[in-house]
Amino acid sequence: MSQNIYDEDEFFNNYITLDRQAQGLAGAPEWPQLKAMLPSLHGVTVLDLGCGFGWFSRFARENGAESVRAIDLSEKMLDRARNMTNDDKIKYERADLEELKLEENQYDVVFSSLTFHYLANLPTLIKEVSRSLKPSGRLVCSIEHPIYTAPSKPKFVLDQEMGHRYWPLDDYQKEGLRTRHWFVPGVKRQHRTMASYINILICNSLQLTDLVEWCPSEQELKRHPSWESEIARPTFLLIGATKN
Amino acid sequence: MSQNIYDEDEFFNNYITLDRQAQGLAGAPEWPQLKAMLPSLHGVTVLDLGCGFGWFSRFARENGAESVRAIDLSEKMLDRARNMTNDDKIKYERADLEELKLEENQYDVVFSSLTFHYLANLPTLIKEVSRSLKPSGRLVCSIEHPIYTAPSKPKFVLDQEMGHRYWPLDDYQKEGLRTRHWFVPGVKRQHRTMASYINILICNSLQLTDLVEWCPSEQELKRHPSWESEIARPTFLLIGATKN
Repeated sequence: MSQNIYDEDEFFNNYITLDRQAQGLAGAPEWPQLKAMLPSLHGVTVLDLGCGFGWFSRFARENGAESVRAIDLSEKMLDRARNMTNDDKIKYERADLEELKLEENQYDVVFSSLTFHYLANLPTLIKEVSRSLKPSGRLVCSIEHPIYTAPSKPKFVLDQEMGHRYWPLDDYQKEGLRTRHWFVPGVKRQHRTMASYINILICNSLQLTDLVEWCPSEQELKRHPSWESEIARPTFLLIGATKN
Repeated sequence: MSQNIYDEDEFFNNYITLDRQAQGLAGAPEWPQLKAMLPSLHGVTVLDLGCGFGWFSRFARENGAESVRAIDLSEKMLDRARNMTNDDKIKYERADLEELKLEENQYDVVFSSLTFHYLANLPTLIKEVSRSLKPSGRLVCSIEHPIYTAPSKPKFVLDQEMGHRYWPLDDYQKEGLRTRHWFVPGVKRQHRTMASYINILICNSLQLTDLVEWCPSEQELKRHPSWESEIARPTFLLIGATKN
């Protein structure tokens, strides 16, 4: 059973203030590059894993998807998603992705935004995802980057001598639980190496086609100077893969 | 034109004392996993890019390869390779990999050990490599890991409070030249992100099949306690890919 931090009031009330929740896809800086990995959505069947408020599910329908099955563990997220949606071709559903079973050959597109790094049992889910994709179907997902999740002390350190900050990387090869303070203490994530993420796909007949370690453009940096930290080390890893 | 540090006496005389030079493949800790990415070498044609003393070229012939074309920029390396080789099916050749032109559909296996991170113009070489591979041919290579090549100050820092060391990662997204002291000052390497390495392959019809961020086993750690640093951050990235 995955942790369901999203249904805890203090976490939830802070979480919804994030740009990517308040503004939806336009508030997620990595969205344009994730979007570029998607095939045409016209007439496709979509599975949205960790749908949150349903921003992507509605986007998919607005762009021609035939139907969307949208799954999340959080009742609060799903309640809000349902309130924001007026479309009976989007089916919201509560389920634990660690235990999800999927039928074969169902979906053209499986999408997941910033969800997979919460799952201890990701290999089993990816096996299900691969089975559920039609031939040449697409998996498009984002995760927290392994460089971001690895450290035992994930805070930038100021190098007095150099006058700039660095990311204190350690424990990169120690996969497993990372418990962090994020609005509240005790938020659980799973750290995996880059090779682990990619090999989970490859060994499940998902051919890697796109890999982006998200980095702001110079223009974006001017508007958001604090994103400078992304030059030192990436926060988001975006992956596109095609079912063989 | 690539830097030819290997032909400078002081560098060369230190370099040849490394286990991987003195003992050959058995002295390279990552070799077993790189070897596992190779297809059967029986009857195949091989291209060895950055062949050094020819350890891999001779291994390929001893394991049934029909012929090996072995290329390096360093005369000193090639002289020693020729002295260690008694096999007219291995052709040693001096060339700058930045300017190499290859004929179409020539090789079953292209191998390269710890060479690509020296090349500013790697995309052009990989285009040539892909053209030169037969359908379903294999590229198997190792490079210095992007996490290893990135930092402006690539030395572990001791965290007094935590009592352990971390790798001061910065500049990960700033690709390009890194000039380091390695036996001698001024050794030039090219830093690229993980995504850049992988996308160079993908966009040249090379399908990623294997990715290893090399890490010592517990047994190896007992024999070589100094390899503990590999747990904090990887030094070697091993890649296997198949021509589509």
